[in-house]
Amino acid sequence: MHEENSGIRPGEVAVELPPAFDAQVYFIGRILTPWTRRDDCPKNARESDAECIVEVDPRFAVGLTGIETCTHVLVLYWMDQARRDLVLQAPRHYAEPRGTFALRSPVRPNPIAASVVRLRKVDGTRLTVIGLDCLNGTPLLDLKPYFASTDAVPDAVVGWHKSRGDSSLP
Amino acid sequence: MHEENSGIRPGEVAVELPPAFDAQVYFIGRILTPWTRRDDCPKNARESDAECIVEVDPRFAVGLTGIETCTHVLVLYWMDQARRDLVLQAPRHYAEPRGTFALRSPVRPNPIAASVVRLRKVDGTRLTVIGLDCLNGTPLLDLKPYFASTDAVPDAVVGWHKSRGDSSLP
Repeated sequence: MHEENSGIRPGEVAVELPPAFDAQVYFIGRILTPWTRRDDCPKNARESDAECIVEVDPRFAVGLTGIETCTHVLVLYWMDQARRDLVLQAPRHYAEPRGTFALRSPVRPNPIAASVVRLRKVDGTRLTVIGLDCLNGTPLLDLKPYFASTDAVPDAVVGWHKSRGDSSLP
Repeated sequence: MHEENSGIRPGEVAVELPPAFDAQVYFIGRILTPWTRRDDCPKNARESDAECIVEVDPRFAVGLTGIETCTHVLVLYWMDQARRDLVLQAPRHYAEPRGTFALRSPVRPNPIAASVVRLRKVDGTRLTVIGLDCLNGTPLLDLKPYFASTDAVPDAVVGWHKSRGDSSLP
């Protein structure tokens, strides 16, 4: 069983999830990475310059028209091995628990990850990218052009993280 | 009927969507904005400094612990009024059609929007933010801390957009 399914650590809090879902998603492709176990994944994407492949379902091939002109792409994907009911989490390398919405942990009500990647090559429906840290085979939800004008905020601060005095990511 | 459901423009291409969905999401709150019709929404979020309210379901209140230390937050929300089957789109203000994955249009297989907002205030489960451009009542999917170290790429370029020589967003 996957690590995130295996229980609750001291200080963590789970809630009862809503009785029903509200909407549905398609997996529109898969992400191919070198990492097959959670422990192998880089702690954060900046630690790795590994090339990964984003493989889009041929059904949606035409949707890629023009993406080759983007230097960076926002990748949304589904972290399908994570539990969804924790609101307070205590990652092993942190001293105190934090709220799910103050963390980038895969454990969240909707396990949707958002990662900015450098786009190196587009070959049909296969995109070669740098900047992912997910498991091999992770389901793809969406690709979006990254607009520096609205997406880049270089002076943004995460206060609780800054005060920790290191640069690892949640 | 909503604009995005009303038909296909010349040059646009629709595909048959997959026969089944693959996963499900919860709406974990709502976004309150001043805009009740698509035409009222700002063309892009940088055009507006309107304060909007992100209201999180009380069930998930504890998940907000620590978010008040963030200057910026990544908001994921569900654009529930958009059709999902277009792969080539011709927004009215553009000369030629472009691929869905090269656009930030709400029309996409999974209508999940990602917006970076400035966090002004946290009052219980109500967050006051600046930087949204969506319709009032839009369902909320997720909130994440915005880390400049991985999320900010100020020199990113969207080639097709740059060559248009203006600054409006798709």
